[in-house]
Amino acid sequence: MTLPTSKPHAGVFPIAPTPFTEPGEIDVDGQRRVLDCMIDQGVDGICILANYSEQFLLTDAERSTLLDVCMAHVAGRVPVIATTSHFSTRIAVDRSRAAARAGAAMLMVMPPYHGATLRAEEKGIVEHYAAIADAARIPIMIQDAPLSGVNLSVAFLVRLAREVPLVRYFKIEVPGAAAKLRGLIDAGGETIAGPFDGEEAITLMADLDAGATGTMPSALLPDLIRPVLDHHRAGRRVDAAAAYARVLPLINFENRQCGLRATKTVMAEGGVIATDAVRHPLERLHPATKAGLLELAREIAPLALRWGK
Amino acid sequence: MTLPTSKPHAGVFPIAPTPFTEPGEIDVDGQRRVLDCMIDQGVDGICILANYSEQFLLTDAERSTLLDVCMAHVAGRVPVIATTSHFSTRIAVDRSRAAARAGAAMLMVMPPYHGATLRAEEKGIVEHYAAIADAARIPIMIQDAPLSGVNLSVAFLVRLAREVPLVRYFKIEVPGAAAKLRGLIDAGGETIAGPFDGEEAITLMADLDAGATGTMPSALLPDLIRPVLDHHRAGRRVDAAAAYARVLPLINFENRQCGLRATKTVMAEGGVIATDAVRHPLERLHPATKAGLLELAREIAPLALRWGK
Amino acid sequence: MTLPTSKPHAGVFPIAPTPFTEPGEIDVDGQRRVLDCMIDQGVDGICILANYSEQFLLTDAERSTLLDVCMAHVAGRVPVIATTSHFSTRIAVDRSRAAARAGAAMLMVMPPYHGATLRAEEKGIVEHYAAIADAARIPIMIQDAPLSGVNLSVAFLVRLAREVPLVRYFKIEVPGAAAKLRGLIDAGGETIAGPFDGEEAITLMADLDAGATGTMPSALLPDLIRPVLDHHRAGRRVDAAAAYARVLPLINFENRQCGLRATKTVMAEGGVIATDAVRHPLERLHPATKAGLLELAREIAPLALRWGK
Amino acid sequence: MTLPTSKPHAGVFPIAPTPFTEPGEIDVDGQRRVLDCMIDQGVDGICILANYSEQFLLTDAERSTLLDVCMAHVAGRVPVIATTSHFSTRIAVDRSRAAARAGAAMLMVMPPYHGATLRAEEKGIVEHYAAIADAARIPIMIQDAPLSGVNLSVAFLVRLAREVPLVRYFKIEVPGAAAKLRGLIDAGGETIAGPFDGEEAITLMADLDAGATGTMPSALLPDLIRPVLDHHRAGRRVDAAAAYARVLPLINFENRQCGLRATKTVMAEGGVIATDAVRHPLERLHPATKAGLLELAREIAPLALRWGK
Repeated sequence: MTLPTSKPHAGVFPIAPTPFTEPGEIDVDGQRRVLDCMIDQGVDGICILANYSEQFLLTDAERSTLLDVCMAHVAGRVPVIATTSHFSTRIAVDRSRAAARAGAAMLMVMPPYHGATLRAEEKGIVEHYAAIADAARIPIMIQDAPLSGVNLSVAFLVRLAREVPLVRYFKIEVPGAAAKLRGLIDAGGETIAGPFDGEEAITLMADLDAGATGTMPSALLPDLIRPVLDHHRAGRRVDAAAAYARVLPLINFENRQCGLRATKTVMAEGGVIATDAVRHPLERLHPATKAGLLELAREIAPLALRWGK
Repeated sequence: MTLPTSKPHAGVFPIAPTPFTEPGEIDVDGQRRVLDCMIDQGVDGICILANYSEQFLLTDAERSTLLDVCMAHVAGRVPVIATTSHFSTRIAVDRSRAAARAGAAMLMVMPPYHGATLRAEEKGIVEHYAAIADAARIPIMIQDAPLSGVNLSVAFLVRLAREVPLVRYFKIEVPGAAAKLRGLIDAGGETIAGPFDGEEAITLMADLDAGATGTMPSALLPDLIRPVLDHHRAGRRVDAAAAYARVLPLINFENRQCGLRATKTVMAEGGVIATDAVRHPLERLHPATKAGLLELAREIAPLALRWGK
Repeated sequence: MTLPTSKPHAGVFPIAPTPFTEPGEIDVDGQRRVLDCMIDQGVDGICILANYSEQFLLTDAERSTLLDVCMAHVAGRVPVIATTSHFSTRIAVDRSRAAARAGAAMLMVMPPYHGATLRAEEKGIVEHYAAIADAARIPIMIQDAPLSGVNLSVAFLVRLAREVPLVRYFKIEVPGAAAKLRGLIDAGGETIAGPFDGEEAITLMADLDAGATGTMPSALLPDLIRPVLDHHRAGRRVDAAAAYARVLPLINFENRQCGLRATKTVMAEGGVIATDAVRHPLERLHPATKAGLLELAREIAPLALRWGK
Repeated sequence: MTLPTSKPHAGVFPIAPTPFTEPGEIDVDGQRRVLDCMIDQGVDGICILANYSEQFLLTDAERSTLLDVCMAHVAGRVPVIATTSHFSTRIAVDRSRAAARAGAAMLMVMPPYHGATLRAEEKGIVEHYAAIADAARIPIMIQDAPLSGVNLSVAFLVRLAREVPLVRYFKIEVPGAAAKLRGLIDAGGETIAGPFDGEEAITLMADLDAGATGTMPSALLPDLIRPVLDHHRAGRRVDAAAAYARVLPLINFENRQCGLRATKTVMAEGGVIATDAVRHPLERLHPATKAGLLELAREIAPLALRWGK
């Protein structure tokens, strides 16, 4: 297998939300507008079909449609990371092959899980990622998030990177993310091409200090998150911290009160999409929560709040 | 809504395993043979697409194929219960409507769950079942199993039965199943048309004593489980206990050492299906475990071990 | 039972950390200094023996010593809330009675839990709190936190408040805390004397907007959290938001990177206590994490960072 | 450190229940009778203060009393295994040292855990066991049970045995116990002095086939479990299986319907102890469950059912 020799992906790779119409269909046109807005936000890449995209509320056919729509519409303007997780190795492999063929630059994959009790042993997890790598032949980002219920130790992540060379990116969004990133970079060395964080960038400043080279926030305010990375990368840590402090109230509100509904609500307000509908059993934000979110958003005016107006 | 007035379903409703070919495709012919074998086992009905059917390892398209294949092949010989669980209410509704249209006699549905952390509040769970009932208009069995990670109290189950009249069956397969069944029957009265147990019938005798009217074991040995119910129903409790004691070593081995691989292994040995393949990350039984299973099976010779020979 | 008629407790009730010596004994003198520092921080009350106090790392005898030391040293200067949670109702009752006799103003109690699997049903939880109330005869705060692994619905919390009248305070520190507080206040009305938040005040501004009347942060920066409540209570919401935004970077770093080690590290730096030792298997902060914490603390200079200098 | 050179412990090591009086105190005289009954059952050793002993419902002082009472009363007639688990390494060390001084032959220790969320990383777990071994200098049995919520891989168990030489015994009571025991014995070789099972012996026959040399059931029927091991050890596998099949209905009922209440109920019926009281929030068996248990017990008449009559 020939490994990529190009420069590793780094920077801001936000997650595209999946817009629905009021009756609950995928809003394909809205999806294209979301992507255009994100590119205008100056993102380094876009992640699709992630948890923040409500991937756990989509049919297989809808996932397939979204993959095609998004790849066709982004059309190489920025690299696209496609999430292809499934408990079944076979299904994850099929999804991954399809994403690679459609032009995805990278796959993001959680370790296999289903419900509260079905998990794989470490041997099975390695085999899972190896099968995906063999089929797709593009770089893989391991998503290390509480939703999977799998405890991935630093030692095991490094083992995965060594045994499956295409596993080169790691999105760490568990408690103590910065310490884990630091441990991962120390232990993994060259095998860790891209230590990323996630979770709406709620731990971004600490993660950058720990060595993260990329972040996967939501599409709510990547235009205002980018300066944090730019300053930090240029050695202007004080400016980075100031830029981060400025956006933290909104990120904190998003992270703790809203989850994936935040970007939809702001994008609906900003004319990017028609409505902030989510799929049941998720529920729209309570009016008071929505008001709190928009108040904080207006103070810093991310592009998503005005892009479509 | 007109409620069914016919006699409630009761008896032995085992789960059909989903056979795969060695390369991993669904073995459609094998599936038909599984169903024929089950009918020859004298079952009162068949449950398809359940967890024991590896439903968490199937694509949407495969589920659809299996629904059609099974309904067409059973062809009314016995009632079919179709599992239609999904975290998304919309998807569970679509699956349920399709199952009802295809002729399913009942739906089995877990409360919404995804991964380790996504669950619905009680209000959302009620709405989930209500939407399914409205769309499918056939009876619903709530599957109360640890896999969902949802704690369903007896009080809430009764509330569900009262607020969603088509919710009439309850498969209880949690710790202390017999005590929960007893509590459910006491509290729910007439609204509980079918208190069932599950989990390979590992708690069957206690559950019958508690008032269970049906059981959903695997398809490994329903022909040998049926006498337990028949004796018990006829008031011959000592005979029921003796019949249960006879099969308990095999059920215990299935429940604790094999899970869903037990039926496949025995059916492959008995010529019902071509191979005991499961989908990764599940793994076939270790040869020593397989030997132990077959040894116990041979002692009591269920039909599945000789049906295809 | 005569219910308290005095004004409900409200305001800032931080948790006292439990200082240890380097060899691992309780540092009784340090504990007294912690309490003095907290009173100088202007707190409305102090919570002892909480999770942030490492209660899960203490012997029964140490808990008893700490109760006596703290009650004697606070000596009525501010009200003290004592945490008395235990899986055993009998032990929780004994701890609660002892705390009330020692002069605690309130008890904070989690629902019964042990390990990953032992929990009580709702009936048992009600009995647990009722027994505590009967024995201690002082107000009780229910601690609703993920550590317990118990999902307490708003409906059940209101039922608890109605059936056990001394249950009047609720510390909500679960995902979506503000929405839950809003729901609790709506549903519970007069029975909810004190809706509080916790978790290092990471959700404080949203919780105040939702109606919280008190907060239980750590003892890291209550002097800087108090203005948030004061402004909010006086109707100066913009000033409250500004005061909160100022402290949010430190609170966020505490909440996500440090946990209970944050206050110890800052208090050790500020001369309040001799060392930031925690008990194994907890570990001190990584030097880089410590540096990040102290950098953020120095920017806003909470009293704990300079009290003992 | 000098390692023990004597023959490894093997055989039947049941757990002593902790009897309470009706008002809820420890019944010290009853505890002595429990131990005498167990010795009359022909056990190879006795485990005290385990989960089946309701250790999570005891104060530190009660644990200490029970240790003294049990060690004094057993007085060397059989070896005693003392459970000394605690989340705090310091407390587990103190408990372990006390148990060793009191004459315990072995310690049984779970990996550190508290509630739903507090766990240690693998490094911390190794340090935890190493500290216990250093202090107590007697063999250690790792208890691998779902209650801890810690996933201990075979590779990690072997690493523990290598790095902490006194870790020589392993009680495996997780799903797929036999397969795990087989894997452990294969991977660990000589370092695994005692592969045991537990969980009321519900997986005993499969575990013996997998190589288990000991079992830790309850004290309900060790006299009837012993023949299973004796036959198996002597190569009479068919007789072992028959002996196991005979007791399986009772063990299954204990394991699934009763838990730790089973032994108390049977011992109360058999005059060993005065009452089957458990500590709240645990509850006595429902009368119907109790009747079912006693019916199954009477059929095979274990010594506990008649010892005190």
